[in-house]
Amino acid sequence: MSAAEPGPAARRRGRRPAGQDTRAALVRAAHDVFAENGYEGATVRAIAARAGVDAAMVNHWFGGKEALFAQVVLELPFDPQTVVATLLEGDLDTLGERVVRRFVTVWDATAGGTFPALIRSLASHDQAASGLRDFLIKHVLSPIVDRVQPDNPHLRANLCAAQLIGIGMIRYVAKFDPLASVDVETVVTTVAPTLQRYLTGDLGVADQR
Amino acid sequence: MSAAEPGPAARRRGRRPAGQDTRAALVRAAHDVFAENGYEGATVRAIAARAGVDAAMVNHWFGGKEALFAQVVLELPFDPQTVVATLLEGDLDTLGERVVRRFVTVWDATAGGTFPALIRSLASHDQAASGLRDFLIKHVLSPIVDRVQPDNPHLRANLCAAQLIGIGMIRYVAKFDPLASVDVETVVTTVAPTLQRYLTGDLGVADQR
Repeated sequence: MSAAEPGPAARRRGRRPAGQDTRAALVRAAHDVFAENGYEGATVRAIAARAGVDAAMVNHWFGGKEALFAQVVLELPFDPQTVVATLLEGDLDTLGERVVRRFVTVWDATAGGTFPALIRSLASHDQAASGLRDFLIKHVLSPIVDRVQPDNPHLRANLCAAQLIGIGMIRYVAKFDPLASVDVETVVTTVAPTLQRYLTGDLGVADQR
Repeated sequence: MSAAEPGPAARRRGRRPAGQDTRAALVRAAHDVFAENGYEGATVRAIAARAGVDAAMVNHWFGGKEALFAQVVLELPFDPQTVVATLLEGDLDTLGERVVRRFVTVWDATAGGTFPALIRSLASHDQAASGLRDFLIKHVLSPIVDRVQPDNPHLRANLCAAQLIGIGMIRYVAKFDPLASVDVETVVTTVAPTLQRYLTGDLGVADQR
């Protein structure tokens, strides 16, 4: 079946999304379905049905649920598995720097993208929080932390999330100057040591696993 | 005029808030007026008028606009000037630790308090962002940073805000475990070195003032 061919649900509803229309319809549907059911509760089948296209279109356009969530909710133009693999290629001593640079570069490219919407939904829907936790912790930060094999891996992943989300809040949502206007390298230089310590440094607490 | 005596606006409207009722009416009015006008745009007179009490009641119950904003929007049970003075009494080497402990202890006492509401309003109203910037940066973090007299004071105050708000987001809004459930001292021990570096350490960038 070609990318342009509408699935059975679309035919039932009389819609004929094709090509980029299919992609846009999936993005809109995913927004709704993730908001209603959270990340774990949302199924590819439900998102495709809401968009009126065949479930195969999700894989065709996004490569799967994780990448769709990344694209839609975090507006990250990447598949998490690929990014994690890329970030882990290289020296562990500069891992914090690579993580900060990747997040800020991607966010800057869309001027924060849907970050304000994500934060708003986080503050109002428990499902959004569980979706973010599943995605950011389980699929991005925990695999990075696990590579280091440190004490307190979950706490470390949480601390990384706290610093990255805090930077996103100040740079794109609250827009405090100068942090909202300095260049990427200033953010990387000032924040990388924090991420590096959270990933590989001494946290000063007993292992609480 | 006694604390229980309603102001002229109250009499005009036929309301008679007294004692704790006056305080509660001011808190509700301040919520609305700060949301509509931002921190700088909100006047004590407008808040008192909305509450139907005399403007003197704001000073009587809260000591002024700053403390009212702190109480209402950040739900911080303290006057910022007093807290800054307290935090600055002591060794500069443990300033980061004192700042983290104070914020987390206060937030924990109200299980995050209005933090989720603050974050939601931050993401949806530019005025909330300017209110938070005025309060958190101008009245809390900048006076602390200024005591240290470092390079890049504004950037340092922003970085402190980014880390504190990120911790608040993860601990009280998104509620990621374990960061949402560990004790205060675990947060202090793990996060204090970050605040300490942002306050007094080498940021690695040229002074951009």
